[in-house]
Amino acid sequence: MAQHPFVPETLELPGYVPNFLSILQILSGYGLVSLGVVILVWITSGRFRHLVGVERLLMCWWAFTGLTHLILEGYFVFTPDFYKKTTPIFLAEVWKEYSKGDSRYAARDSAVVVVEGITSVLEGPASLLAVYAIATRKAYRDPLQLAVCLGQLYGCIVYFVTTVLDGVEYAAGPFYYWFYYIFMNNIWVVIPSLIALRSWRRIVHQFENKKGKSK
Amino acid sequence: MAQHPFVPETLELPGYVPNFLSILQILSGYGLVSLGVVILVWITSGRFRHLVGVERLLMCWWAFTGLTHLILEGYFVFTPDFYKKTTPIFLAEVWKEYSKGDSRYAARDSAVVVVEGITSVLEGPASLLAVYAIATRKAYRDPLQLAVCLGQLYGCIVYFVTTVLDGVEYAAGPFYYWFYYIFMNNIWVVIPSLIALRSWRRIVHQFENKKGKSK
Repeated sequence: MAQHPFVPETLELPGYVPNFLSILQILSGYGLVSLGVVILVWITSGRFRHLVGVERLLMCWWAFTGLTHLILEGYFVFTPDFYKKTTPIFLAEVWKEYSKGDSRYAARDSAVVVVEGITSVLEGPASLLAVYAIATRKAYRDPLQLAVCLGQLYGCIVYFVTTVLDGVEYAAGPFYYWFYYIFMNNIWVVIPSLIALRSWRRIVHQFENKKGKSK
Repeated sequence: MAQHPFVPETLELPGYVPNFLSILQILSGYGLVSLGVVILVWITSGRFRHLVGVERLLMCWWAFTGLTHLILEGYFVFTPDFYKKTTPIFLAEVWKEYSKGDSRYAARDSAVVVVEGITSVLEGPASLLAVYAIATRKAYRDPLQLAVCLGQLYGCIVYFVTTVLDGVEYAAGPFYYWFYYIFMNNIWVVIPSLIALRSWRRIVHQFENKKGKSK
């Protein structure tokens, strides 16, 4: 019936072209490039002698998440016809594969597009700025990290809750549901929660110290 | 054709009951109660001798926006059938009237419901906490205000951009579009932007001073 592998089958996607790359090629492509970014930032940040371990780890995360937002999610936002690509463009392949976990990407659901838009256009550059701000210990590094993390968390709430409210099954099976939709997205729930908490505490601590001194 | 005053006319709302109160009664009801809250907080805050004018103004705003989020928007979130009420419940009247500016409220659009859900359940109590935090000059008052403002701004972006992406007219005429949809919502763009900027600067200033001192 449907000319595509997505759910619900009633979704109309004229011009859909199946994946050229296998799931293994797509996942290992994204995984290896990301690993490369993390290793590069870890090694480079080692040259900044004043940075402690947790700061270097944060820089790795912000570089990884920033490039994911900017390049991967940015491609989705500005390429409505990614599922029609007749040549194996890696970024289009990723979104065709991911749409098996959430067909709203192929269907161009407006809530998904606006969340991805905010994520790529605002949070992407802000994440990369966080790499620089941590490396150079800018005074704005903690409010910046808090702001981006809260944005990521707000996006995740919208992303998950709209599915529940729609009451529609968007995943093409348990593997795609649990791995793509639940597991992959929860990385952006857990890590931003931890970083937001850390930056919040550091900011409050700063005001508390000040208060003590002015007494 | 349509049994309701909302746009698009194809929207199905079985059981819709027209407004009992006039637009003047609804707007002046909300306006006067809000004014009462602002006056009450302004007078009460005057008893805290250490508070400066801008802090008292901020307390008025946070009390007003917090109660709006919690009571008005909270009622919408947890009352899907507000447009069916057969008795004149003031909060239901407000949402029936407001739906003329954005029918997605009556239609229970999932993006609108999740944004209103976050606003009422998380930002409502957090706004009231900000009133207390400013009055008692808690060390967390600036990161708290920054966090709530960014949430309000994120919500406004989702709220406005989804309409553009949907490409559907949701307002029942120019008056409702400009006054309810554009003007009323932009209050929550302008004021949170100003407060976010203020808190951001205060936080950064705190880290800068610290840095200077440790040198």
